[in-house]
Amino acid sequence: MAKLSLKIGMFGCGTVGGGVYELLHNPLKLASLRANGVDAVISKVCVQNLSKKRDLQHFSEQTTRFTSNYQEILEDQSINCIIELMGGVTDAKDVVFGAIKKGKHVITANKALVANFMPEILQLLEENPNVRFGYEASVCGGIPIIHTLQNAYSGDSITEIAGIMNGTTNYMLSKMEHEGIAYDAVLKEAQDLGYAEANPSADVDGFDVQSKIAILAKLGFGGIVKPDQIPTTGISRITTVDFDYAKMMDSTIKLLGVAKLLKPGNPETQTPPEVSVYVSPVVVPRTNVIANIGGATNLVNIRSSNLASSAYVGQGAGRFPTANSVVNDVIQLARGEGPFDPFKASTPVTLQPDFEAHFFVRIKITDGVGIIRAIGQHAEQANVSIYSILQSPIVDRKNVEFVVTTDQTSLSRVRQMCQDIATLPFVQEEPLFIPIL
Amino acid sequence: MAKLSLKIGMFGCGTVGGGVYELLHNPLKLASLRANGVDAVISKVCVQNLSKKRDLQHFSEQTTRFTSNYQEILEDQSINCIIELMGGVTDAKDVVFGAIKKGKHVITANKALVANFMPEILQLLEENPNVRFGYEASVCGGIPIIHTLQNAYSGDSITEIAGIMNGTTNYMLSKMEHEGIAYDAVLKEAQDLGYAEANPSADVDGFDVQSKIAILAKLGFGGIVKPDQIPTTGISRITTVDFDYAKMMDSTIKLLGVAKLLKPGNPETQTPPEVSVYVSPVVVPRTNVIANIGGATNLVNIRSSNLASSAYVGQGAGRFPTANSVVNDVIQLARGEGPFDPFKASTPVTLQPDFEAHFFVRIKITDGVGIIRAIGQHAEQANVSIYSILQSPIVDRKNVEFVVTTDQTSLSRVRQMCQDIATLPFVQEEPLFIPIL
Repeated sequence: MAKLSLKIGMFGCGTVGGGVYELLHNPLKLASLRANGVDAVISKVCVQNLSKKRDLQHFSEQTTRFTSNYQEILEDQSINCIIELMGGVTDAKDVVFGAIKKGKHVITANKALVANFMPEILQLLEENPNVRFGYEASVCGGIPIIHTLQNAYSGDSITEIAGIMNGTTNYMLSKMEHEGIAYDAVLKEAQDLGYAEANPSADVDGFDVQSKIAILAKLGFGGIVKPDQIPTTGISRITTVDFDYAKMMDSTIKLLGVAKLLKPGNPETQTPPEVSVYVSPVVVPRTNVIANIGGATNLVNIRSSNLASSAYVGQGAGRFPTANSVVNDVIQLARGEGPFDPFKASTPVTLQPDFEAHFFVRIKITDGVGIIRAIGQHAEQANVSIYSILQSPIVDRKNVEFVVTTDQTSLSRVRQMCQDIATLPFVQEEPLFIPIL
Repeated sequence: MAKLSLKIGMFGCGTVGGGVYELLHNPLKLASLRANGVDAVISKVCVQNLSKKRDLQHFSEQTTRFTSNYQEILEDQSINCIIELMGGVTDAKDVVFGAIKKGKHVITANKALVANFMPEILQLLEENPNVRFGYEASVCGGIPIIHTLQNAYSGDSITEIAGIMNGTTNYMLSKMEHEGIAYDAVLKEAQDLGYAEANPSADVDGFDVQSKIAILAKLGFGGIVKPDQIPTTGISRITTVDFDYAKMMDSTIKLLGVAKLLKPGNPETQTPPEVSVYVSPVVVPRTNVIANIGGATNLVNIRSSNLASSAYVGQGAGRFPTANSVVNDVIQLARGEGPFDPFKASTPVTLQPDFEAHFFVRIKITDGVGIIRAIGQHAEQANVSIYSILQSPIVDRKNVEFVVTTDQTSLSRVRQMCQDIATLPFVQEEPLFIPIL
């Protein structure tokens, strides 16, 4: 494809948008981009509130106009590319879909939009084959994981994608582990620091990771995975007690998104590959590199037939890491460089809602006799084999928390076992069950 | 650029070449490549010894011919791309230069050729602007570090590239650390396993890393760095005693290639940036992710203004990791995807042979009185400030090894200090000095 002179309409001008503006309009950066054959200017910016003061150091009225009406960008025939940084899936959807239909190239950081409306986006791109679609910034801020999956694995077969994809929860879990701070206190701290939202659900309930792993699963395995079909457990039930028990196992706990090939497809019988995708806190052995990624850092580990295991580590969010990913999409577009097939070829996959693992099960009880026998009985009924029982010295007989780890078994069996155990009279709440990596 | 139907001439058919053949000709892989719009066939293979038996599972005489005469490929006008996997800089140079002059695209895994003949290659590519040049496989086997540096940092400013880029020495150092095996024994073991060559110099003396960091420095900082200008220290003087002292510092020792921006350039005064590049064993704190990369795994860590710190971890060598990188270059070429500027824009840099760091200095002496005073005196003369002195309990007074660590100082000062110390009567050999990360 030929080089392209880009006139950009940007939607949203908050933290990331301001960063994108700076990276494209700072005179030093601009000179370096021009030297690399990139000609791009943000000619209009659409924001909700025109009177809000913006932190744009190198803003120039000569090049850029603000508007609060998004049709003013979509209808502007001189604009050939939009950058969507509004978030959400209502206005952002209208804008992105509208732009594609008008033949404008799209660059977006919107994981929820890309993950939830992938079939519609693919359909629109098929109808508008000249439109290019960049979404590097939608997953793991500054880690070039989308481009890497688009390019570095084309001749390879991926068997697993797993990673820490949410910096807020990783920050919280690291604090709980190292400083023994309770969940509620650490959440409040994260909110005070601006890491977590006032309504923290997207982060702590795992929905943010759900969208991200859905996107990576498409690139890894070819099939569209609907986010709402992904079994998702957040971190809100994790306590410092869980870290104590994980430590006994020389492990820690991380919130992971995982997409795993269970069974390769068979082209001859047209059997699609079987894939399992989930989001859950996971017990991770200290020897695994994932265990050592603390704070707001993200990591994505990819297993594949040619490369064995590769990991990509970096800043998962923040103004300049995310803006850098947006600008990389701008650069590839302006230079006429690939990928031209942003979601790679689509092939059906069978999503297997169940997955196999060893599990960590934390049970909260009022102490008494016959407890281990009763729990053993329920495990046997659910066909779950117990691997170990961990019990710290009991301090308060009315509130005892202990951990059972299982042999390799399925999520559905463990869930059944925990539901059964929850009905026992001495059990105080449904046990927490999370996989062990 | 348009899609391209590739007829490939491959030079060399050993471990990696056999892997490339398999990845491009295995019917399953072939079907998947075709589905991704890649049309590529290896039509001729040039090898030294035609009668040697080759391990090519999916070889077909209908598609591929063997030859021992490389002109047969260079003169073949139907061949539009060559893959060079011979290694060395004599025949490989003739083949690569010849191919470019004939307008054939080049893909190579040859780090020594790329690093040592970069000015000539750049010149030839300028004279033949339609020729594309892929060298992903030349650095760190399966880690897509070349493509990542070509693409993900175009709007960013890199400040440091550092990494473990040689699997053989990392395997040896890991063994020395964890099993306390002496250097000679661990080298022999690596040779027996086929990890190290009969003549291990390229690995253990750091020349392999020297070529790799020279290539990465070009992509990171714009300037051509001649490998023979890079201060290079290998691992042959590292002993298990060094690991004992590193452990006292809660650190380990890794052979790193490092390229670091010391001072940004000033475009107004046309002052080029100052860069320091070196290869050396380095004392790495356990808290650094680099310390936890064991065995034959490679890691490249990149610091930049937008992304802060990003790390790329994977297999640094081996049949399929390296072949996968070669095939990725084939895929990008066949699909007409970028990068079209394989070495990025060239800008002058000033190579600063000196660099600053804290240093670890191991001194071997015959015990006596006044030793610390004498060493302190030489440190003072060289203007080096001592930070700590580490001394394990002495077992044999005739052979005492202890460690001095310095405050931030320059390589040249430490070198001067060590040369002076070596002249002291009780000192048995020139002290070992390596930087602390």
